[in-house]
Amino acid sequence: MKRKIAVLPGDGIGKEVTRGAVEILQAIAERYNHEFEFQYGSIGGGAIDETGNPLPEETIEMCKASDAVLLGAVGGPKWDNNPSHLRPERGLLAIRKELDLYANLRPISYYSSLSEASPLRKEIIEEVDLIIVRELTGGLYFGKPSERTTHEGKEAVVDTLFYKREEIKRIIELAFKVANGRRKKVTSVDKANVLESSRLWREVAEEVAASYPEVELEHMLVDNAAMQLIRNPRQFDVIVTENMFGDILSDEASVLTGSLGMLPSASLSIGGPSMYEPIHGSAPDIAGMNVANPLATILSAASMLRLSFGLEEEAEEIERAVRDVLDAGFRTRDIVADGTKVLSTTEMVAEVKASI
Amino acid sequence: MKRKIAVLPGDGIGKEVTRGAVEILQAIAERYNHEFEFQYGSIGGGAIDETGNPLPEETIEMCKASDAVLLGAVGGPKWDNNPSHLRPERGLLAIRKELDLYANLRPISYYSSLSEASPLRKEIIEEVDLIIVRELTGGLYFGKPSERTTHEGKEAVVDTLFYKREEIKRIIELAFKVANGRRKKVTSVDKANVLESSRLWREVAEEVAASYPEVELEHMLVDNAAMQLIRNPRQFDVIVTENMFGDILSDEASVLTGSLGMLPSASLSIGGPSMYEPIHGSAPDIAGMNVANPLATILSAASMLRLSFGLEEEAEEIERAVRDVLDAGFRTRDIVADGTKVLSTTEMVAEVKASI
Ligand SMILES: CC(C)[C@H](C(=O)O)[C@@H](O)C(=O)O
Ligand SMILES: CC(C)[C@H](C(=O)O)[C@@H](O)C(=O)O
Repeated sequence: MKRKIAVLPGDGIGKEVTRGAVEILQAIAERYNHEFEFQYGSIGGGAIDETGNPLPEETIEMCKASDAVLLGAVGGPKWDNNPSHLRPERGLLAIRKELDLYANLRPISYYSSLSEASPLRKEIIEEVDLIIVRELTGGLYFGKPSERTTHEGKEAVVDTLFYKREEIKRIIELAFKVANGRRKKVTSVDKANVLESSRLWREVAEEVAASYPEVELEHMLVDNAAMQLIRNPRQFDVIVTENMFGDILSDEASVLTGSLGMLPSASLSIGGPSMYEPIHGSAPDIAGMNVANPLATILSAASMLRLSFGLEEEAEEIERAVRDVLDAGFRTRDIVADGTKVLSTTEMVAEVKASI
Repeated sequence: MKRKIAVLPGDGIGKEVTRGAVEILQAIAERYNHEFEFQYGSIGGGAIDETGNPLPEETIEMCKASDAVLLGAVGGPKWDNNPSHLRPERGLLAIRKELDLYANLRPISYYSSLSEASPLRKEIIEEVDLIIVRELTGGLYFGKPSERTTHEGKEAVVDTLFYKREEIKRIIELAFKVANGRRKKVTSVDKANVLESSRLWREVAEEVAASYPEVELEHMLVDNAAMQLIRNPRQFDVIVTENMFGDILSDEASVLTGSLGMLPSASLSIGGPSMYEPIHGSAPDIAGMNVANPLATILSAASMLRLSFGLEEEAEEIERAVRDVLDAGFRTRDIVADGTKVLSTTEMVAEVKASI
């Protein structure tokens, strides 16, 4: 198989972790006789410095011409006081919109070898295996107006939570498809007791559910979901929700198992290339020190093989290699525990590669 | 001191827990020579059944003529399928607006005697002592339009996040005042990398901070706050945020210490009566069984004495009594642990009363 992969390292540790993931993808290509062509583009703070634009036109063109995109992370203190159109995360929001990355998938799974790193008690997080399906191109993130205004002569401000019914439908449909291949339960999270958009969301969820009689649909209010994720995360299989609720809940969920540096994500497009990236940020404090955990990005690359290229065996091979390396007691310093050995970023990549 | 207290028991266990709190308030009145006059009104599901209105006009009048309001809880499965204007929680939203209850205060504190009830590890939650100051009458909850619409001929929906600058200012000012009497740190939570309303929020926070040089101001993005509450809740003193973020974060925070049945809240008005209520819901599954935990409502009554009537000593007397009863090993069944004795609702109230 021949594929073009656009790599956007971004800022901070983004460079180190994408370099690691590319090495693993190359090892897979060699082992399974594929041809992956890597092309590099800029996004975020680095792109602002070079071009004055957090998402340069060339990057967009390159991504659109690729089969999938691998992203590191964006942002850093250097750009924190920039005006909002010149901030690194604008590049992220822009690429989601440009590539129509409507669905963000974040699996949260328990690694028994990392249980001590969790802030939660072992009996709460053991066997947690859930996935959050977050709508990524609508809602408060892109609704207009989003501006300063006046109200009865007084200064005021407005943001807009806007959804087309079809945008709601396609994300809920995806959640049902995902659940169908898992434990067959969808928890649709909304705030139907307050928001009209949530009431439409609930209606559409019921409508979609009718086509998936074997999948159970449950509705949960967002405030309750924020509680339930901590009290009893095992109750969840697939959680589907709108953009802002998904942003909050998926970050909350990402710390449950104590393995933030391990968590991959996929942002899917319907026709074009999808994008894969670790959940963690650019961690400017440790950038360039060769200590970042490359596993989330390596696991994101595995998701790319599975979801964009249909290479299930190759994806599983990477996931197995990562598990084996952890079971052998190797760790980066963010997940270190008694009796384990701390590796640098490049050493960790080398261990995973050796295990493939 | 002579005061009129409006009591709105509401639905489910609301009746049992407000009855308990009224008993304690009466004990305090006797002991300290005050005169509290209690008047009862209906709200929520019961009010819908009786009058077809989740917040009858008489209830509003009675509350406005009182010095403070004590609320139990509203809601239940009976009304779950009602159209949205006939749902119990509409009564809650309406009373907030009618009484202009702009600020919801939720203190979350660690009870060492309850540490086993927490889903978090002891070393994470020990000594947690934070308070969430949530804006309660603006944002997505009341912004217009909030309706079905069409976009390029297609079905769509819109909700509106609207704030006047002065609404933002008064809540942030309150947070600084509260912090000034505590550990002098305000964490202002927003989503300034996406929302214009959050950017105004940040500006106003900086402006208010200038008048409180002794209080530290920190800004935190809402997704990060959802993580930090679990990873390291001790870092927080006062968290201030807008209505919807506050709804989500305060429910998340309320399960940290494992003492949901213990948590009081206060909803403050600027000129008129303020309202006090437990954080927990109406718990229809255990309603009428005399097993509900009355302590959150009793502690809410203590907040009323402190914040509405300025009766600090009396408030502390109630809080001390509650602590003593817990230290003596008495529990309701929601917080039971090895070696403690389970009491009914009325027995628990009697113990607290005996300790005053
Ligand atoms: C950086 C920010 C705009 C972004 C978001 O809110 O979507 C981030 O938090 C995420 O979840 O990818
Ligand atoms: C019942 C509901 C409308 C309410 C809210 O969202 O404000 C509740 O969740 C709360 O926090 O008091």
